[in-house]
Amino acid sequence: MRMYDLIVKKKNGKALSKEEIGAMIRGYVADEIPDYQMSAMLMAICFQGMNAEETTALTMEMAHSGDMVDLSSIEGVKVDKHSTGGVGDKTTLVIAAVAAACGVKVAKMSGRGLGHTGGTIDKLEAIPGMKTAIDQKKFCEIVNRVGVSVVGQSGNLAPADKKLYALRDVTGTVDSIPLIAASIMSKKLASGSDCILLDVKTGSGAFMKDLEDSIELAKCMVSIGEQAGRQTMAVITDMDIPLGNAIGNSLEVIEAVDTLHGQGPDDLTEVCLTLASNMLYLAGKGGIRACRKIAEDAVSSGRALRKLVEMVEAQDGDSSVILDPGEFAEAPYSFEVKSDQSGYVSHMDTEQCGIASMVLGAGRETKDSIIDYTAGMILRKKTGDYVEKGDTLAVLFASSEGLFPKAEAILKTAYSFSLEKPAEKPLVFAKVTIDGVERYL
Amino acid sequence: MRMYDLIVKKKNGKALSKEEIGAMIRGYVADEIPDYQMSAMLMAICFQGMNAEETTALTMEMAHSGDMVDLSSIEGVKVDKHSTGGVGDKTTLVIAAVAAACGVKVAKMSGRGLGHTGGTIDKLEAIPGMKTAIDQKKFCEIVNRVGVSVVGQSGNLAPADKKLYALRDVTGTVDSIPLIAASIMSKKLASGSDCILLDVKTGSGAFMKDLEDSIELAKCMVSIGEQAGRQTMAVITDMDIPLGNAIGNSLEVIEAVDTLHGQGPDDLTEVCLTLASNMLYLAGKGGIRACRKIAEDAVSSGRALRKLVEMVEAQDGDSSVILDPGEFAEAPYSFEVKSDQSGYVSHMDTEQCGIASMVLGAGRETKDSIIDYTAGMILRKKTGDYVEKGDTLAVLFASSEGLFPKAEAILKTAYSFSLEKPAEKPLVFAKVTIDGVERYL
Repeated sequence: MRMYDLIVKKKNGKALSKEEIGAMIRGYVADEIPDYQMSAMLMAICFQGMNAEETTALTMEMAHSGDMVDLSSIEGVKVDKHSTGGVGDKTTLVIAAVAAACGVKVAKMSGRGLGHTGGTIDKLEAIPGMKTAIDQKKFCEIVNRVGVSVVGQSGNLAPADKKLYALRDVTGTVDSIPLIAASIMSKKLASGSDCILLDVKTGSGAFMKDLEDSIELAKCMVSIGEQAGRQTMAVITDMDIPLGNAIGNSLEVIEAVDTLHGQGPDDLTEVCLTLASNMLYLAGKGGIRACRKIAEDAVSSGRALRKLVEMVEAQDGDSSVILDPGEFAEAPYSFEVKSDQSGYVSHMDTEQCGIASMVLGAGRETKDSIIDYTAGMILRKKTGDYVEKGDTLAVLFASSEGLFPKAEAILKTAYSFSLEKPAEKPLVFAKVTIDGVERYL
Repeated sequence: MRMYDLIVKKKNGKALSKEEIGAMIRGYVADEIPDYQMSAMLMAICFQGMNAEETTALTMEMAHSGDMVDLSSIEGVKVDKHSTGGVGDKTTLVIAAVAAACGVKVAKMSGRGLGHTGGTIDKLEAIPGMKTAIDQKKFCEIVNRVGVSVVGQSGNLAPADKKLYALRDVTGTVDSIPLIAASIMSKKLASGSDCILLDVKTGSGAFMKDLEDSIELAKCMVSIGEQAGRQTMAVITDMDIPLGNAIGNSLEVIEAVDTLHGQGPDDLTEVCLTLASNMLYLAGKGGIRACRKIAEDAVSSGRALRKLVEMVEAQDGDSSVILDPGEFAEAPYSFEVKSDQSGYVSHMDTEQCGIASMVLGAGRETKDSIIDYTAGMILRKKTGDYVEKGDTLAVLFASSEGLFPKAEAILKTAYSFSLEKPAEKPLVFAKVTIDGVERYL
């Protein structure tokens, strides 16, 4: 089997066999296949695609290229959740606590943020003392005892994905649905949970800007998960507008705590309850309506918030900031961005909101950037709101006043206005299971 | 200008500007752009193509990546000829002599063979003493004095093409018409002639198996040549059958000499006269019918053969083998391949004929293979001929009897038989000029 022949086969639109994909990935990880051949293959895949069998074979091979996490020491059903990334997406903090409060085990490995999107691990590390690098044994012990633990990816998880992603990133071959699906699912499968809930974001702040592409990606990932013997489903949620009002690490933890108090923004609350009830449903806690009720009760009873406190304490975090978010360190400077015009906010370029937040210090421009946990913004006006000229659109937070002009300029470009109120859109567009697509639009 | 952005631009089907192509090629030759980005770009070009402006810009940049040969010290019109390569294609030996005998200057750089196709330089080196590595000054001196010289590529000719071709060769990105056209024409433009005649081979023994692809390639190359200020035209000739009967280096020189004696095989004679008369036409020697007459006269008068003798002597070759081909060293062993069946030869897989010849020692399997100049075959039966079971299809020649079984087996797979005589096909399918395509089919 020569890599040259596999490239030509894929270029000519033919499907690669499981054996061919296996040899290709093993050869690439072993440095036997050079980058220049793999990048030609990746570009050919961008044009010719991969069928369901190829994508599953690729995912399984990538998952097995490193450690397969063994969660068998954790009792009960383990449910994982993955978001494709967005702006202001602090749902993990809320729903991991809700699901655990309802008796579902959440043993979750999360990532860090890069570019305009934030990462759950960064948000957790905004909590003083919080540890996210925890060894496998202690991780399982915490999940068994508390019901939930969220840690950074440790060990040698899907090294084939790491190497392939680094190559895709510099060769213009990121935006291929089978390659994206294989990248995400290889890590999810290696992470060891029984059930996987995927939150596929769509819109201006998401990686996938187009709803149909998002549904396609979701179908592809659900198919892989089910073929690998994991119960898998996906919800397609709106990222054409930042989720909630807070963007920035400690600001988002505070908003998550507010939401667990039942006092979060409506959009965030609704998306969290949808995701949490679907996690419960996947774990076999009943019909979807019953699960929604269970999730709501976990919030209103305060049990979900107490679960978050327990998890923070188990990971050596200072739970006083969860119990009283006023204890969080605050940014030394703030700045109000005023509207230059009157009208309804007709659209928000959500990616630009994320970039403005990154400029303030809340995100990473490169992998080596250092995060300012206090930096970020609170949005006062979002899509659909009426604004008078001079009204505050958002309050910016930073450790240096010099960062405000650039962030303000970027944020202003994110807002579009119209005379008429824009039509309302649902927060959840569709649900994708192995049986099909249920649309809410 | 980042290579990443250029890859994405081409991937999305947009045209690259002249400046972008220039920066890309210069950056690649300077090792500033890595192979893995260039191979992704090449694959994207295979799918999205390049328009005429892009292809010309790429060709010019590749031509100027090294030395541009200066032929200005040679008086008169210099006409170059290029064949896309085939099996039994010894036309250069014949037509360079014919054109020079008619007063056209031929300062030609040729290549070596690889795989199933032969190379003119290998054929010339079958002549004892013949030098093909000749410096620029002496090359021009010979052309001025004799009218013709055929040498190997010397110096730093289109190094961008060398580097790109080596990458295309291992990444499945060879078969793109703009890339093939740019590769060929960059070397032709750098070689310095005023006029360029392209012999685009089509059929089972050619690189381009399909007539329409061949015409497309010809149009692309003619357009590049004319935009670069060179008078350029192409003829599309048949390579669905070996040209002439001899395959192998000294065997082909002998057949070329026979043809210059007016005693060559009909197909080879006809293709040579077509090519030669078009070279004369390009050089302004008159209308195409008049040029054909001039070429025929050069052969029948013996002037063309004398020109070949002069060239061989000017390049230190032993002209006694041209004056008496019986002087050529002969292979120690020969073997007759007999037909297993009766019927008309309905088709020949010409590539397999070339491979069988390579197996006998006449060609290179890899760049480092050593050629046996005496090896090869004489075909006794070709497409359209009637064969009785037991008739000799071909006579094989080699320096070791052990090579015959494999070559025989390969050659037998090349022959197809039918009960009815196959329809005759023209030897020249079309002529392509900047004004359009003239078809003979």
